[in-house]
Order: sequence, then C-alpha cells, then structure tokens
Amino acid sequence: MHKIKNYKDIEQITFGQHMIIDCYGCDKEPADSMDVVHQLLKDLVEVTGLHELMPPYLVKATSNLEDGGKDSGGISGFVMIQESHISVHTFALRGYATLDVYSCKPFDARDVLKVIKKTLKCEDIDVMNMERGLKYPKEDIYTI
Amino acid sequence: MHKIKNYKDIEQITFGQHMIIDCYGCDKEPADSMDVVHQLLKDLVEVTGLHELMPPYLVKATSNLEDGGKDSGGISGFVMIQESHISVHTFALRGYATLDVYSCKPFDARDVLKVIKKTLKCEDIDVMNMERGLKYPKEDIYTI
Repeated sequence: MHKIKNYKDIEQITFGQHMIIDCYGCDKEPADSMDVVHQLLKDLVEVTGLHELMPPYLVKATSNLEDGGKDSGGISGFVMIQESHISVHTFALRGYATLDVYSCKPFDARDVLKVIKKTLKCEDIDVMNMERGLKYPKEDIYTI
Repeated sequence: MHKIKNYKDIEQITFGQHMIIDCYGCDKEPADSMDVVHQLLKDLVEVTGLHELMPPYLVKATSNLEDGGKDSGGISGFVMIQESHISVHTFALRGYATLDVYSCKPFDARDVLKVIKKTLKCEDIDVMNMERGLKYPKEDIYTI
C-alpha cells in the first residue's frame, strides 16, 4: 500500500471549479452542426486556458422518442483536459443544450457563458458555478 | 429556421439526473489501474441501466506538480451514454477520485455509490444528486 498518512491529517485544499450549464431556446442550426459543436469545445478550452489531453470526441445521437425517451436527436461532445473535462449534449429540435466545464484550475465563468451564448444563440441559461473536492489533500497520501 | 414555437410556450419537464461525486481516502491500487477504472465505468453503465454510445475512453494523466498544478498523476475515463455521460478522474497518490453520472433517465443513486465504494474503497464520499434541465420542453420547438 505504501500509505504515508490519512488524508484527514493533511492540509486540505479545493480541487477544482465545475460550471453546470443548461441552455434553452438555442438556435437549431449550431446545435445540429458537428462542425459548430467541435469548434465550441475548442473555444471553451481556449477561453478557460486549459490543456487538452485529447482532441474533442463527438458522436451523433439519434432520436429515442420511439423507445419512450425524450431526445429527438442531437450531438454529444467531450474533451478531456488536464485532470478534468468539458462536455456538451445538444438536442437541436428542442433547442436545448447541456454543458459541463470542470477544471482543476480556476477560470472565468463569464467568459465561458459568453462563448456559449455567442455559439448557440440561446434565449435563456441556467448556470451554477461550484467548487469540487473541498477536502482534496495538499500532499500525496501514498508513495510510488 | 423552421421554428414552431417558443420553448416558453410548451409544457416543461425535467431533462435528467446528475450525480456529482467526490471520493477521499481511496485505495491507491484501484485508482491507479486502467483495468479497474475501465471496469468501474462498465459497472456504472450497467447499474444505472444506461446505454453506451461508445466504449469507455481512458487516458493516463501524468503529474503536473512541476508546472504548479496539484495533480501527482492518475487516470481519466469517460463513457458517452445515450444523451449524457459518465466520467471519472482519479488521483491515485492523493487517494482522490471525482466522478459524474449524468443521465436523461432516472437511476438509483445508492446503487451508484455502492459500486464506487466497492471499487475504490474510499473512506469518505461527498455526493450531490441534482436535477438538470428543469425547463426542458416536452415537445420539439423546431421541425426537421
């Protein structure tokens, strides 16, 4: 195990910042475009000053209304950044998009909202900006 | 545009459920194993009854302590499920893991916690179970 000490006995710091964003009344065209959603992820990485661990990964999700779902089709995208991630799921015909921007480094939440509003042209955004990992130990509790 | 109506004029429902999970005092071995973290994602998909849109995608994140970061290395994993996602980031030497389970279909939050506790053997978990997309329109606001 090589355990040095219990995490409770080490100074604790906050691990990261997580923005939770739900957008309503988005324009159909950008929410339905792989190119636009790809660029949105790139722009969010840039505006937050984060570092990609992979290029953005995108899939098209087909409608699941016939299976009793509530999705009439859209795009899901994801990019792994150093230690955390940015995700987006759009539902073009509903005008809905739901995003998460989670980073271990602080970033400006207003810059994130500006990029999203400009890209998706949404009428309304619900947003929450929360701290994650409030008991993150400042030092390692194990040795290699 | 083919806009049918404004989203505010349509009945609104809740889009999905998002569990936000931060784990402390995790065992080093599972948090440092690509195999274990891969299986954890598979188990979370199974226990929530969700459907994968892709196999789990995992990367090893190297330490960024020399760059002034707070990560001494770990694993990041992600799986796109129908309309949403499950993500995990482990920090093995810190005994920390941070997870998100987000689905448009309801699932049992306790089952999710059981799988995580059993796999990562953490001493302490901070968890929040939130609703996302409270103004999700029940019908399409655009036509194809």
